Amino acid sequence: MGSSSTTGSHDGVLAGGVTWNLSPDRCFDGDPARRHIARTLYTQVRDLPLFCPHGHVPPMLLADPTARLGSPAELFVIPDHYILRMLVSQGVTLEQLGVPTRNGRPFEADQRAIWRRFAERFHLFRGTPTGLWLQSELVELFGVTERLNGESADRIYDQLEVQLARPAFTPRMLLDRFRIELLATTDAAVDTLDAHRQLHAAGLSQIIPTFRPDALVAIDAPDWRTQIARLSAVAGIEVVDYPSYIHALEARRSAFKALGALATDHGVISPITKRLSSGEAGRLFERALRGESSAADAARFTAHMLIEFARMSCEDGLVMQLHAGSLRNHHTDLEQRFGPDKGADIPVATEWTRNLRPLLNAYGADPRFRIILFTLDESSYSRELAPLAGYYPAVLLGPPWWFHDSVNGMRRYFDLVVETAGLYNTAGFNDDTRAFASIPARHDVWRRVSCDWLAGQVIQGLLAEEEATELAVDLAVGLAKRAYRA
Amino acid sequence: MGSSSTTGSHDGVLAGGVTWNLSPDRCFDGDPARRHIARTLYTQVRDLPLFCPHGHVPPMLLADPTARLGSPAELFVIPDHYILRMLVSQGVTLEQLGVPTRNGRPFEADQRAIWRRFAERFHLFRGTPTGLWLQSELVELFGVTERLNGESADRIYDQLEVQLARPAFTPRMLLDRFRIELLATTDAAVDTLDAHRQLHAAGLSQIIPTFRPDALVAIDAPDWRTQIARLSAVAGIEVVDYPSYIHALEARRSAFKALGALATDHGVISPITKRLSSGEAGRLFERALRGESSAADAARFTAHMLIEFARMSCEDGLVMQLHAGSLRNHHTDLEQRFGPDKGADIPVATEWTRNLRPLLNAYGADPRFRIILFTLDESSYSRELAPLAGYYPAVLLGPPWWFHDSVNGMRRYFDLVVETAGLYNTAGFNDDTRAFASIPARHDVWRRVSCDWLAGQVIQGLLAEEEATELAVDLAVGLAKRAYRA
Amino acid sequence: MGSSSTTGSHDGVLAGGVTWNLSPDRCFDGDPARRHIARTLYTQVRDLPLFCPHGHVPPMLLADPTARLGSPAELFVIPDHYILRMLVSQGVTLEQLGVPTRNGRPFEADQRAIWRRFAERFHLFRGTPTGLWLQSELVELFGVTERLNGESADRIYDQLEVQLARPAFTPRMLLDRFRIELLATTDAAVDTLDAHRQLHAAGLSQIIPTFRPDALVAIDAPDWRTQIARLSAVAGIEVVDYPSYIHALEARRSAFKALGALATDHGVISPITKRLSSGEAGRLFERALRGESSAADAARFTAHMLIEFARMSCEDGLVMQLHAGSLRNHHTDLEQRFGPDKGADIPVATEWTRNLRPLLNAYGADPRFRIILFTLDESSYSRELAPLAGYYPAVLLGPPWWFHDSVNGMRRYFDLVVETAGLYNTAGFNDDTRAFASIPARHDVWRRVSCDWLAGQVIQGLLAEEEATELAVDLAVGLAKRAYRA
Repeated sequence: MGSSSTTGSHDGVLAGGVTWNLSPDRCFDGDPARRHIARTLYTQVRDLPLFCPHGHVPPMLLADPTARLGSPAELFVIPDHYILRMLVSQGVTLEQLGVPTRNGRPFEADQRAIWRRFAERFHLFRGTPTGLWLQSELVELFGVTERLNGESADRIYDQLEVQLARPAFTPRMLLDRFRIELLATTDAAVDTLDAHRQLHAAGLSQIIPTFRPDALVAIDAPDWRTQIARLSAVAGIEVVDYPSYIHALEARRSAFKALGALATDHGVISPITKRLSSGEAGRLFERALRGESSAADAARFTAHMLIEFARMSCEDGLVMQLHAGSLRNHHTDLEQRFGPDKGADIPVATEWTRNLRPLLNAYGADPRFRIILFTLDESSYSRELAPLAGYYPAVLLGPPWWFHDSVNGMRRYFDLVVETAGLYNTAGFNDDTRAFASIPARHDVWRRVSCDWLAGQVIQGLLAEEEATELAVDLAVGLAKRAYRA
Repeated sequence: MGSSSTTGSHDGVLAGGVTWNLSPDRCFDGDPARRHIARTLYTQVRDLPLFCPHGHVPPMLLADPTARLGSPAELFVIPDHYILRMLVSQGVTLEQLGVPTRNGRPFEADQRAIWRRFAERFHLFRGTPTGLWLQSELVELFGVTERLNGESADRIYDQLEVQLARPAFTPRMLLDRFRIELLATTDAAVDTLDAHRQLHAAGLSQIIPTFRPDALVAIDAPDWRTQIARLSAVAGIEVVDYPSYIHALEARRSAFKALGALATDHGVISPITKRLSSGEAGRLFERALRGESSAADAARFTAHMLIEFARMSCEDGLVMQLHAGSLRNHHTDLEQRFGPDKGADIPVATEWTRNLRPLLNAYGADPRFRIILFTLDESSYSRELAPLAGYYPAVLLGPPWWFHDSVNGMRRYFDLVVETAGLYNTAGFNDDTRAFASIPARHDVWRRVSCDWLAGQVIQGLLAEEEATELAVDLAVGLAKRAYRA
Repeated sequence: MGSSSTTGSHDGVLAGGVTWNLSPDRCFDGDPARRHIARTLYTQVRDLPLFCPHGHVPPMLLADPTARLGSPAELFVIPDHYILRMLVSQGVTLEQLGVPTRNGRPFEADQRAIWRRFAERFHLFRGTPTGLWLQSELVELFGVTERLNGESADRIYDQLEVQLARPAFTPRMLLDRFRIELLATTDAAVDTLDAHRQLHAAGLSQIIPTFRPDALVAIDAPDWRTQIARLSAVAGIEVVDYPSYIHALEARRSAFKALGALATDHGVISPITKRLSSGEAGRLFERALRGESSAADAARFTAHMLIEFARMSCEDGLVMQLHAGSLRNHHTDLEQRFGPDKGADIPVATEWTRNLRPLLNAYGADPRFRIILFTLDESSYSRELAPLAGYYPAVLLGPPWWFHDSVNGMRRYFDLVVETAGLYNTAGFNDDTRAFASIPARHDVWRRVSCDWLAGQVIQGLLAEEEATELAVDLAVGLAKRAYRA
């Protein structure tokens, strides 16, 4: 074959050597005809505004006009559990990475030293979405031009420090620059929502809260009664029994809605649902108030409350999001020393068909109800989730979550889901991140991979080009907007 | 790269705009060299007769010379649970789609209105095998030339109505036109087989019954004793205890064989097998005759009967088909209002290794025995089913079933199964459909995808071209014929 | 499209007809640009020495200078459970294949007849890794030039016989020719290690033992007390209770280490781990010494001993290998007639997240500890194993095992594992084979597939070419060396 066409085809690829640049065709299949279509589709969606209906950005970062992104280590390393876990897996300790300890033991305070430890090990992220997001942020947002490693660490640190001090890199300026049309945060049900009230007052009503009541449902958790006390206070309703508990939850949902909330979010290890009699729910609740709940009590109560939250969703129109299958804090010692969300959450196999049946038999065909399902168990995509989404009017399937928010994760999702569920029973994309500055990079990977997947469908004669164009826009923004009724 | 080759490579692709045509290269990978081989292979199998050893076409459709395919809505929408489920998932009701209700509630009788509702939502099927089959039927069988949507709905309805009234579109004429070499229906064990006797009398002996005894095994079902009464009547054997029950089943199998049956079919939620003592089997059966069976009884009895049916297969040579893992009628309300098979069946995870062990230890190496396994749990392909088929002489692995009878489903099947089981331990293709007019479209997708997969093996130096040619024919027809001993 | 480029691209492909040759581009994707990069990468690793840290070659084959590979049937057919299972699945019996019976029944002794039965059915291995390895051995090692089938069987048998009689085909000469840098065997904990002592004495210290204590942990096995007696004898420590048992195991580990062992190996059906109190462990052990252990006792004891072996690994530095999920001897009759390891082992679904938690909470962050995990349940790759390897410092993920040691198995592994675990938390490749002459062919497939996968990353702009070059070498040798601390 002609060597010119062979070498020509990866001209745009991420080059080696000193300059660090991103291939304009990254995430696209190498077949020239498919790539051509993918590029054309991508050109039409690349610059669409970002719609972010689920994420974990701290609202005060945008509510407080004086908030800053911090040092390079504070921005990229310390709060990012994707980064922490990979560095830990290769023998770095969280103390060395500047993560505050719970027990008063010292931890690294030198921001530059933390950055260096990360930069020296940046090769660990080869082939990972974290590596792709980081490269995209550094090159496209911060203008870095040399490859990050131990040798370049200090120079890049200096460059980032300069950039981060500039007004253009304040969170509010980035909010505009990123063209974020909507940004949902995730907030405890007992949150005062002060930050969101400030945002509203400042005219930033595109930033909205999401109602997350998990801590109020975990009746066997040591701090559950503290949470209930907070609920009483913030709702202005004395929670003394199950009916007042339900009443207070409903009041909080109203408060969230008043600040623009579109959705609730529920995290469970298993999506088991089961309607209890009101008598049993009441007895479980009273036992919890006495501090006598067992793990079995908590599991039954959670199964019941998922149906109860579905009932509330029918009534107030908040979209229910269900994230199942993460065994949190797998490494007990880590949690005791540093707290939760430090990278030691490990998925488990998740059964959806039998577990969701009671909830879906109650509300799955109710036109007022909508539930979006998120899984960490990819074997359930084609076996359970696509069939459920492809039948129940209320069910949509959320995008690839967490570990699967990646180039291959997205491809598997499209290949395993669409044929059975159809694209119109999916909920588009959300970035699910607390790393504000990484939001555009994450949406960009989704847009690229979805355009490449559509291009593959066109090449195989399974979609017409004008259908693909329509679907590219839907995947970028439309499906998510419709899913959350925005 | 040269733009001519880039745009040239999807010339044949399904075009946009007014004319609706199918790419002659649909389902083929875009790589030109691979596509070239795929085309060559496909040319050699495209026009081979259709061998259909498992399906659900109503035999009276062919036995009755006056039978017709009905209105466009009756042909394409009302009886097709693939279509119904997708439309339901987007908020259409079965009443609106003309599905008869069980409770006397009204349902749409206007065929054209039903068709319009479907046509307006045809975009929902983008990227689905249903969409591909439908397009293929409309374009290739009925000569439709414009894309189906709300705007074109009425014109296409008119066109279909004209076609369907023509003699060329009677089921018997289509049987010839489709070049169906063998067509197995699926028939209750208590069926009188009158339709099949008529077919035989009319010389249509290529249409054969398949023995399906599920309703006679479900000892806890409300109508089980009615089924047993029918069994007594049709077999001419008074079923009064377990031995007479077994005797009557054997008699029915003989009657099916006499009309050409090659196989039995068994649908279970779990493929658990366990040989009971004849004492216990008898006691379970007698409890059932008294109407006192529990769900646990039924599960034990089913596990036992699977082994008993394997024993019968050894003796009479009928091939045993086992379809496991569908939780039928997930949505109770739907079943109560419309009956079974309306699109609300959802798969569950399926364990094969431990569950089939008793049956396979008894008969898995018996040269008289053959069992073909069908799964809805793709995670079991490489983990359990390919290893089982790659060891036990009696075991073959059936083609991708139901939700997985799709372009990607077939690709995953080939990739996950062949390396461990080998192609010669698979059972070729069957269309498994009740939609008679869709049969050629379904076989065509299989033939295309299998040729494309073989082409990929050739391109990667893993098969010689003449091996691929031989295998393409085997995949199209040969493996299925051998599997069913036709 | 230009026909020249189309046909040109599979020039090197395995040709049909009389000559049998291997495509120099086998296992590479067909896209010309990707293939070009894959070739370049492969050229750099093709001839690197072979590092074989886990396998089952009988050490006496190399310790005994007079050992020979045997007849073609003894080399290729009789000892290879991959071959046996496929032939059995198509109705050949093990007696016909010359496998010695346990019960004194006759079995085929004519080596040429065995070979012919295999050769006539060589087409069964189309599309399987076994077929690829066999072709590679026959063509590249033995210089066979015509396709193997029933017609050529005798001529090829003659040719192989001539070759095998040559000094160049003695195991020790092949060891050099293969450029095996390290070869670990797997040895019972009670093995005298005489063969390994001979190897050491002969200067062949690149061949090392691996400590496998499974038979000493299976307290409910009929021969367990015999095993304990052997342990006492070989360790020189009278095993009379749990403490002396632990002491004897530690002594054996020291003996293995003294002969170069780098690792231990543990095979379990489920990777459940649970630390028992020393009181309970002692009581279970004493019950076992009295021959009174139940299956439940054995399961608890195994769960405990896995943690105890992890403790020992921390202390002596031997790397712990854990292979889970094979249900051995699924076909009881086969085992009774021929013994274990004849092709009837079938995988089961495997839970890692909850099961390994006690072990990993105890030692997963201990810098002295290393554990390499092997699964037969690919659904656990992205769900459980990659997340575990991507967090715990001690955990590495072993290469695709057994049925998944194949072209597609490797591709799935890379696609499912790397994005979450990163490549540096994987353990490179091992061939895991008892078929000494197949070792180069197996490493070659891995090197080809890994280079092709890296080329795909480059083409998609996800890795720079110089990163891919570095990783190709790591995948070929470096990762395995580091994993086993060689």
